Amino acid sequence: MLGQIIEEGDYVLLCLDARRTYLLKIEVGKTFHTHKGYLKLDELIGKPFGSKLESNSKISFTALKPILEDYIMKSSRKTQITYPKDAALIVMFSGIGSGSRVVESGTGTGALTTALAHYVKPEGKIYTYDIREEFKLNAEKNLKRAHLLDFVELKSGDVTEGIEEQDLDAIILDLATPWLVVPHAFKALKPSGTIISFSPTIDQVVKTTEALEDYNFTFIETIECLMRSMQISRGKTRPHTMMTGHTGYITRARKTITSTKEPESNPI
Amino acid sequence: MLGQIIEEGDYVLLCLDARRTYLLKIEVGKTFHTHKGYLKLDELIGKPFGSKLESNSKISFTALKPILEDYIMKSSRKTQITYPKDAALIVMFSGIGSGSRVVESGTGTGALTTALAHYVKPEGKIYTYDIREEFKLNAEKNLKRAHLLDFVELKSGDVTEGIEEQDLDAIILDLATPWLVVPHAFKALKPSGTIISFSPTIDQVVKTTEALEDYNFTFIETIECLMRSMQISRGKTRPHTMMTGHTGYITRARKTITSTKEPESNPI
Amino acid sequence: MLGQIIEEGDYVLLCLDARRTYLLKIEVGKTFHTHKGYLKLDELIGKPFGSKLESNSKISFTALKPILEDYIMKSSRKTQITYPKDAALIVMFSGIGSGSRVVESGTGTGALTTALAHYVKPEGKIYTYDIREEFKLNAEKNLKRAHLLDFVELKSGDVTEGIEEQDLDAIILDLATPWLVVPHAFKALKPSGTIISFSPTIDQVVKTTEALEDYNFTFIETIECLMRSMQISRGKTRPHTMMTGHTGYITRARKTITSTKEPESNPI
Amino acid sequence: MLGQIIEEGDYVLLCLDARRTYLLKIEVGKTFHTHKGYLKLDELIGKPFGSKLESNSKISFTALKPILEDYIMKSSRKTQITYPKDAALIVMFSGIGSGSRVVESGTGTGALTTALAHYVKPEGKIYTYDIREEFKLNAEKNLKRAHLLDFVELKSGDVTEGIEEQDLDAIILDLATPWLVVPHAFKALKPSGTIISFSPTIDQVVKTTEALEDYNFTFIETIECLMRSMQISRGKTRPHTMMTGHTGYITRARKTITSTKEPESNPI
Repeated sequence: MLGQIIEEGDYVLLCLDARRTYLLKIEVGKTFHTHKGYLKLDELIGKPFGSKLESNSKISFTALKPILEDYIMKSSRKTQITYPKDAALIVMFSGIGSGSRVVESGTGTGALTTALAHYVKPEGKIYTYDIREEFKLNAEKNLKRAHLLDFVELKSGDVTEGIEEQDLDAIILDLATPWLVVPHAFKALKPSGTIISFSPTIDQVVKTTEALEDYNFTFIETIECLMRSMQISRGKTRPHTMMTGHTGYITRARKTITSTKEPESNPI
Repeated sequence: MLGQIIEEGDYVLLCLDARRTYLLKIEVGKTFHTHKGYLKLDELIGKPFGSKLESNSKISFTALKPILEDYIMKSSRKTQITYPKDAALIVMFSGIGSGSRVVESGTGTGALTTALAHYVKPEGKIYTYDIREEFKLNAEKNLKRAHLLDFVELKSGDVTEGIEEQDLDAIILDLATPWLVVPHAFKALKPSGTIISFSPTIDQVVKTTEALEDYNFTFIETIECLMRSMQISRGKTRPHTMMTGHTGYITRARKTITSTKEPESNPI
Repeated sequence: MLGQIIEEGDYVLLCLDARRTYLLKIEVGKTFHTHKGYLKLDELIGKPFGSKLESNSKISFTALKPILEDYIMKSSRKTQITYPKDAALIVMFSGIGSGSRVVESGTGTGALTTALAHYVKPEGKIYTYDIREEFKLNAEKNLKRAHLLDFVELKSGDVTEGIEEQDLDAIILDLATPWLVVPHAFKALKPSGTIISFSPTIDQVVKTTEALEDYNFTFIETIECLMRSMQISRGKTRPHTMMTGHTGYITRARKTITSTKEPESNPI
Repeated sequence: MLGQIIEEGDYVLLCLDARRTYLLKIEVGKTFHTHKGYLKLDELIGKPFGSKLESNSKISFTALKPILEDYIMKSSRKTQITYPKDAALIVMFSGIGSGSRVVESGTGTGALTTALAHYVKPEGKIYTYDIREEFKLNAEKNLKRAHLLDFVELKSGDVTEGIEEQDLDAIILDLATPWLVVPHAFKALKPSGTIISFSPTIDQVVKTTEALEDYNFTFIETIECLMRSMQISRGKTRPHTMMTGHTGYITRARKTITSTKEPESNPI
């Protein structure tokens, strides 16, 4: 997929360095203004990804082929995004891969949806729920840009009231009250399936953990990932001064075949 | 894929809790001894994954269907493994997905190879090099157990002397002298392709960063991931006392189409 | 104080490197056995602190003059100690210095008491409470060894039921239910005085913070200190693999002159 | 010391909450403007520290008696300050207390000098060197405000060329080339005395560690302190989003009585 020629309508990640990048659509006649001068984007048409483009101030940018991480980071936002570090760990802990069937909620900007779809394609499917109708269009746009819309079904609905799909490989939650979803997740998951919840506060984690214990999930664990960025330069190497101190906790568990909680009312 | 019935020859992750898990092959007549009593593994045959199994001391274990993370953590080891947290970030930063062609070196236990193969299947391929012939058989065994051997070519060779493949989507390095591989990586990668190096020491990071700069790579960045595990229990919630303080630094970069270094000898 | 000659009865910190140190009393005829051979401690008598002493296996140790940190780390223990990193921050946030009058509870091993006494001497005083009578003797021994017993009054008592001292500069809590001490602390502190609570769990922190808010304390803040140790060696520099992931949270606040909490009905 | 009445000329820490505080001198007729309205500071005269003061918008501030930490954080700055977390650990690792004689360099804003002086008073002395003459006046002002100038001698000089004092308890370095000071520190310290170096980059740490090894220092160790601030609120408790990722590394060591390096030229 990489290594193609840039065409009109393609997205490129214009990159000055790791901290200054821009995800842009190539259109004829379009110029892009930066604090390092402006660039004529259509000069890239017909050139391979990875080509350099100079601004009128002779500053050189690289036109990279966007990867998953870029689509996540540059999601058009109506709310907070799930950062690549967290998306990567959520994907790993969920065990999903090509062919997996996954429910996600809420959709939000679609940043995490993008990551999930990327890793279940070409044969899997993401069913993503959000109660906020107005987020749908924005998420759809983000998914389309990343060429992943075919692997996603955008649904309007409240997973705290029920999950329509059955026999799921994984359920991924990033919403205010994940503990309310646990009973429905227990029913919707395959035995041995995974559930992951991403929450900023410790109170959400405690309530969700208790719900998972109630429904007899196993391998229950909560972690947090601190990503530290380094300034690498011979003689001046050091961690960067500022870092993101907290995005959220990742709680994960796996379904066992029987629940000790009201077994008769959870007919699997 | 999940939700199947356990058959003889299958692997199960026997799970007491998140900290005490065992990856075991189901064989007729096999018993497994733990500090919580012994278990007759063949009683699981014919039951669904996610089923409970009691030890002779009446302690209940769950027989989970192993996921990628389990195959990584339980790799048969001849050397250190790449931990799931690092594997997850390496995969994310590499941009790979189903269909990607990737060179990795060194193979080591095959833990990272397992992760890479999981995410490029069914259409991609991992070419993994190691100079230590004796590691091959062990890595092969680990990959076979995870049903991923078909997506991997195990090669004996030294990537500091050259890379045979061309037009690669990504190159993943976990070896002592990654900076020596940079010239070969530049030639073997597609333009806009990614290179990731995982190194425990800051000195390796500095040398590799300088080599990447010399070959005109862009989006050069080094990060480190600290994973913190939480003890969740109402009234007693706190981070766990011990944590892994450091596994390694992840350096990543993307290829631009032209190198300023000896351009004539790098005819792309 | 440093630079003296080692005499019989003195304590020395025998140091092989930063990770292998031993706090020992010099006695005539005493030998000390290590995995690097044994040492005749009385050979140090008459030599200056900082002198080398060889084991019978010709391994060289240094006999350092103990500093505060050593007395803390080598406290004879009946329970967990407060680590130097936390003791240092507690002292800083408390604002105490020579001359301060401070209440501490619980005494425990006396490790934190040692730190507090060190910084209020020669004119200040630490009143340290513990309900566990059996800890007193051990703490006394630790304080005596550090030459700090004169600046401490060891008390048996339960500060959740009241504090006898008045007009205190600071109150330092390391006990199970710090929120129960807040009403008493409000009365015992000078206006603008500081209160510090060290707790391992988040639940203790929340309850204590709420109590501080109820009693109209200001500058309420909770922090946690992660100390990371580095392995420094040219070409092999990196953070150490293991680190302490959590000791406890430090909550601090300062008393305002009036409490909004039913001032007349708080006759403590 | 705390609990006094506020007089004209006193400094108060005006505190809205832990994140919004102001160190101000009380003067007749002075008003202070905040985004929460203005305050008439002289209304505080004659009231005790810890009193409340309302802005014209009826927002209540507390007039606290400043503690060491406030003087550090509110240092008038010509360059970066040493943060309280690092100052606290430097003091702990140095072993200093009332009566200690300490050399510090560079003086900078005097923030670390303030901390050192606070802990060696009333009997000790800080000799602080800076080559930048223009910093002296500013540091002097900061020390005077904290009532600590009597315990400090501000010197103009370059400690990479020599240290005038002898028989020191500790030497504290926060300058660009600490390794150049090590030979002089070896001569100026008492046997068993401590040296602490605070440096932002790993390269400074490596060079300094090597110099300390050359001069036969022992207990050589480098650590880094990450301070994490928590947002405490029932149901919404979590670490704050942003944190300071790195201020500097703290390297510490203790002098042994003999140096293996040119022993004849180091006549102690």
